Amino acid sequence: MRVTRRELSKLSASVFLARIASGQTRDPLPSWNNGTAKKSIIDFVQATTTEGNPKFVPVEERIATFDQDGTLWVEHPVYSQVVFALDRVVALAPQHPEWKGTEPFKSVLTDDKAAMAKFTTKDLEEIVFATHAGMSVGAFETIAKGWTAKAKDHRFRRRYTELIYQPMLEVMVYLRANGYKTYIVTGGGQDFVRAYSNRVYGVPMDHVIGSALDTHYTYNKEGEGVLIRPPKLLLNNNFSGKPEDIYLFLGRAPRAAFGNSTGDQQMLEYTKSCSGASLAMMVYHDDAKREYAYGPAGGLPDTKVGTFSQALMDEAKRDGWIIASMKHDWKRIFAFET
Amino acid sequence: MRVTRRELSKLSASVFLARIASGQTRDPLPSWNNGTAKKSIIDFVQATTTEGNPKFVPVEERIATFDQDGTLWVEHPVYSQVVFALDRVVALAPQHPEWKGTEPFKSVLTDDKAAMAKFTTKDLEEIVFATHAGMSVGAFETIAKGWTAKAKDHRFRRRYTELIYQPMLEVMVYLRANGYKTYIVTGGGQDFVRAYSNRVYGVPMDHVIGSALDTHYTYNKEGEGVLIRPPKLLLNNNFSGKPEDIYLFLGRAPRAAFGNSTGDQQMLEYTKSCSGASLAMMVYHDDAKREYAYGPAGGLPDTKVGTFSQALMDEAKRDGWIIASMKHDWKRIFAFET
Repeated sequence: MRVTRRELSKLSASVFLARIASGQTRDPLPSWNNGTAKKSIIDFVQATTTEGNPKFVPVEERIATFDQDGTLWVEHPVYSQVVFALDRVVALAPQHPEWKGTEPFKSVLTDDKAAMAKFTTKDLEEIVFATHAGMSVGAFETIAKGWTAKAKDHRFRRRYTELIYQPMLEVMVYLRANGYKTYIVTGGGQDFVRAYSNRVYGVPMDHVIGSALDTHYTYNKEGEGVLIRPPKLLLNNNFSGKPEDIYLFLGRAPRAAFGNSTGDQQMLEYTKSCSGASLAMMVYHDDAKREYAYGPAGGLPDTKVGTFSQALMDEAKRDGWIIASMKHDWKRIFAFET
Repeated sequence: MRVTRRELSKLSASVFLARIASGQTRDPLPSWNNGTAKKSIIDFVQATTTEGNPKFVPVEERIATFDQDGTLWVEHPVYSQVVFALDRVVALAPQHPEWKGTEPFKSVLTDDKAAMAKFTTKDLEEIVFATHAGMSVGAFETIAKGWTAKAKDHRFRRRYTELIYQPMLEVMVYLRANGYKTYIVTGGGQDFVRAYSNRVYGVPMDHVIGSALDTHYTYNKEGEGVLIRPPKLLLNNNFSGKPEDIYLFLGRAPRAAFGNSTGDQQMLEYTKSCSGASLAMMVYHDDAKREYAYGPAGGLPDTKVGTFSQALMDEAKRDGWIIASMKHDWKRIFAFET
């Protein structure tokens, strides 16, 4: 028998889940407070998956895209992948004695926070190349998996991969149970996110679109083919890069998109450009107590790549994007909360 | 009900199909003659989908990649997409009076076959840019769909999309029925192939990886976001580009790969580099009567991008790639044969 019992039972389970999620029997989004945001998601899913509804979307067009940093997990005070890169500089320093006297590495090795706060894009690029390139793709995967299994956030004293927003996980599960493919579309490194996406989000590697270094197929000493990363950026998956890369990978716009900053603005616009039903949602960080408040909601410096500016808030309101307030819309933020 | 009856019945149908395909009740590859090639495919599928078998492959790793030109459809005497580009030069000529006096367009417009046969890569690139770039992605899709719905091959007097190899379609259906995702990995243009892939091969747009022009997200006069193609190549999905782009899109090597020329060599090597079970197969064009004979099998000039060289045949034999002879292994080549 080629389709195994385990696969069949998985299949049955997913159909069962779909029924539960779609019926009135159980709340598909238990970590959300009742309100506009929650209602918008449920209305969208019900309308787009009900045959005969004018908003019905055929299964092959059911694509939902999620930014990661600040949308699916904590991005403050600094992107986890930047912490990873800095940790890697420290780990690799013994092989690079010259770094002791060379910026930007020197500031990292002396933990000069003031200097690091002033790093330019070029400085960060140099650090990314030194820590992410010049090795086989398999070697990088092993390193990234090892780091994410251990490294912890300072404030929450939890692994970064535990700092996932439970309400957003519920949205992903709910969408998948209703025939949507859920993609992570991140400004972060595609390979980095792929190292844990399936375990943490239930999103397989081929559903992760991110910034990517070039790859070069070459042969090792034994004559075996191997994929090596040269220090060259192929895809910068931020801002306009998001719709561009979604189109490159998928050939069409998503029907639902979730973001939290100007880095996601074009992806959300692209989503709303669909001729049929579409949903655009911004996660709004306005909960300094349980997480952080920044952008229009707080005094914290915003993250470096994208910002939740007042102009973005104006566009969101004008174009009917849903604002999900962490403070008001989310009953629970993390799975580890009791 | 969110999962519609139609979707559930599709689901049941695919499980049913899987059972039939996997059982002894029906030949999953009726257009193949019994022989090593057919047996290799069936053995591979049975072994990799039987739990407990040492060659078992988990569902998330069941990826099969197919070259298109010469592997899934006829590539001789010239790639269909080149015919498309030349047709587009003729169609666009009234808007470009300067082309009458400028190469490479002049040779196309005067139908100077001798000159066209000598086109360099740069000439062809210029033609591709002039016919594929400088428009929105939606406009290109409409043009490509219109052309493929009408244009016909001269020898067979059939639409190009009818010149699909029936034995390969059966392999795709058989693999999908057994949990494999089937990807087209083509040196041809990704957008061009996506315009008909679902209709012709049952392969959705997001399962097509091909050569790709860059895309630029910008705004039209109405302030709406639009994706435009600048005349710049982003991915050259031939030779080393195939494993590089498979990794970019999917994050892992395929378990089965099908090709027919040196343009597929690295993809097949990459596939055989899997630590578990893998299958690499080359379609061998040795049937001048029913299709064409070229490469080691015939005197016809090989296609321009890849060739089936003797060196490639040697590598195939040395590394256990299967050779599928069109003449001996294929009972029927096209669906329209009686």
